[in-house]
Amino acid sequence: DSKLKVFTCNSNPGLAREIASVIDVQLGDSTVENFSDGEIQINLKESVRGADVFVIQSTSAPVNDHLMELLVMVDALKRASAKSINVVIPYYGYARQDRKARSRDPITAKLVANLIEKAGAHRVISMDLHATQIQGFFDIPVDHLLGVPILGQYFKSKQLEEIVIVSPDHGGVVRARKLADYLAAPLAIIDKRRPEPNVCEVMNIIGEVEGKTAILIDDIIDTAGTICLAADALKAKGVKEVYACCTHPVLSGPAMERLDQADIREVVVTNTISFENRELPEKIKVLSVAPLLGEAIVRIHEELSISKLFEN
Amino acid sequence: DSKLKVFTCNSNPGLAREIASVIDVQLGDSTVENFSDGEIQINLKESVRGADVFVIQSTSAPVNDHLMELLVMVDALKRASAKSINVVIPYYGYARQDRKARSRDPITAKLVANLIEKAGAHRVISMDLHATQIQGFFDIPVDHLLGVPILGQYFKSKQLEEIVIVSPDHGGVVRARKLADYLAAPLAIIDKRRPEPNVCEVMNIIGEVEGKTAILIDDIIDTAGTICLAADALKAKGVKEVYACCTHPVLSGPAMERLDQADIREVVVTNTISFENRELPEKIKVLSVAPLLGEAIVRIHEELSISKLFEN
Ligand SMILES: Nc1ncnc2c1ncn2[C@@H]1O[C@H](COP(=O)(O)O)[C@@H](O)[C@H]1O
Ligand SMILES: Nc1ncnc2c1ncn2[C@@H]1O[C@H](COP(=O)(O)O)[C@@H](O)[C@H]1O
Repeated sequence: DSKLKVFTCNSNPGLAREIASVIDVQLGDSTVENFSDGEIQINLKESVRGADVFVIQSTSAPVNDHLMELLVMVDALKRASAKSINVVIPYYGYARQDRKARSRDPITAKLVANLIEKAGAHRVISMDLHATQIQGFFDIPVDHLLGVPILGQYFKSKQLEEIVIVSPDHGGVVRARKLADYLAAPLAIIDKRRPEPNVCEVMNIIGEVEGKTAILIDDIIDTAGTICLAADALKAKGVKEVYACCTHPVLSGPAMERLDQADIREVVVTNTISFENRELPEKIKVLSVAPLLGEAIVRIHEELSISKLFEN
Repeated sequence: DSKLKVFTCNSNPGLAREIASVIDVQLGDSTVENFSDGEIQINLKESVRGADVFVIQSTSAPVNDHLMELLVMVDALKRASAKSINVVIPYYGYARQDRKARSRDPITAKLVANLIEKAGAHRVISMDLHATQIQGFFDIPVDHLLGVPILGQYFKSKQLEEIVIVSPDHGGVVRARKLADYLAAPLAIIDKRRPEPNVCEVMNIIGEVEGKTAILIDDIIDTAGTICLAADALKAKGVKEVYACCTHPVLSGPAMERLDQADIREVVVTNTISFENRELPEKIKVLSVAPLLGEAIVRIHEELSISKLFEN
């Protein structure tokens, strides 16, 4: 049986500590720092020879720094003879650049997959990929975990009455369906349509929402434009109260201000993207993915030990 | 004959414009911007199908952003069917992480080489790599250009008398020898030695320097610690005047202050690392590598056209 080790870079050190504590291991001893000119300097302070290593690192903002930290860490682990290198990327940055939306666009989500493999990772564990197709960008195993049970459990414990789960657009219906199933609630969909080119979008709502408590769900809340417009449309249709939730709180640019001003009771998110270096407004409730990721790590380690995947 | 196109990312747009003008082509039309969350957004605004494309981008600070811009640009060019993708990296970041200096260190210079190849580059053009071994980190052709003729020509034009070329350490002697040859001048070497552990370093000087004008040369001036200590040592040995020069003005942390206070007449550098977003102190003289890189690009394009390297 090879040893299980957990290392972290700088995107989510708090989450990494929590995961280590959940699965009862010491966090691996390493330094992830910068030289005077900003170049990343990583040193592993303990042996990883023959170990199954899990690295916790979201590629959240500053995305290029966090991605390079991960790649350099994988390079160091590889050269230090780790038996398997399993990268836990709770939030996978660049996931929205997953296709050529315009001609001559890059497909950066695929580039990033290539870089992670090239650096030497053997397996990826991620959560709520913006497009599930991103699993296919890798030639190594990808474990794809969902935030819906974590978000669902929280709303269940709140015992809200007469709820309706709302997808803010057509792309999110599958995810909203899962939450609706979890909470045994009905589903509604915001149906944005542009009746003619250069005319304002109309926010139509498919489904019964009047007098109910709406729970909006998305994978990512970035600038919060979509979610706040959806909340307005719901309120206009006589919804009693609006909650919003997502797995990945990117919250860039005007997001905080918009959420603050929006008629949303609570914004429920997870810690795939850390708040350690950001202000956490009162309206935002953060749920931890540490128990889920911890369980995944333990199971994968068991599987690696049983199948001796990397020994023949 | 396939078309020659030159594109730039954000590290040295001024140098790219200068190169384009030197070789009399229009700079390729593209945007290299950021989404609200900081992710890089690149779009090529013109066709590159069948073209020999040269991308100008140093991986200078912010190194991870500049490296990712380069990789995403290469990905976009590849998907847009460029015939050959030639990356011009005047300053190659992470070059000093070229070996395991301590156990369990990464070798980031090699990682970066792998990433550039994986993204889809066919050829690299760079200048004064910190270690020439880095050429061997690539499996694609690397053209390695030297700054010595540019620096040498400048000093020749100054017609300084009784000069001596000084290497600030043993690692830089080969480079200093080249400048000494270029200027038909004698060579001296700063010989740092620690007589016993935990005792101050002694700055010994090998070679005749008294009463002469010394020209210190290094590949990189980063925090300027080495070069300023060397200048002090030379002054203490009766040198009349000290000049310093290097190809890559990294100039991080205390560099500007140190150079300002040092008894150095002039610091001569090149524009492999741009001053477009940095203050340029009076003491620093910047020489352009555009003519050299422009010539290299034209020659490589001729070679590609003649050998039809990428057509069979
Ligand atoms: N970081 C980002 N921020 C905002 N938009 C993005 C980002 N990355 C990619 N996109 C764009 O978002 C669109 C994809 O989002 P979606 O349609 O929700 O899958 C594409 O048009 C991308 O160009
Ligand atoms: N960006 C950097 N800034 C300062 N030192 C570095 C940097 N990158 C690598 N190094 C260290 O510099 C040493 C290599 O420099 P050298 O001995 O001049 O080849 C190694 O000990 C590296 O750990």
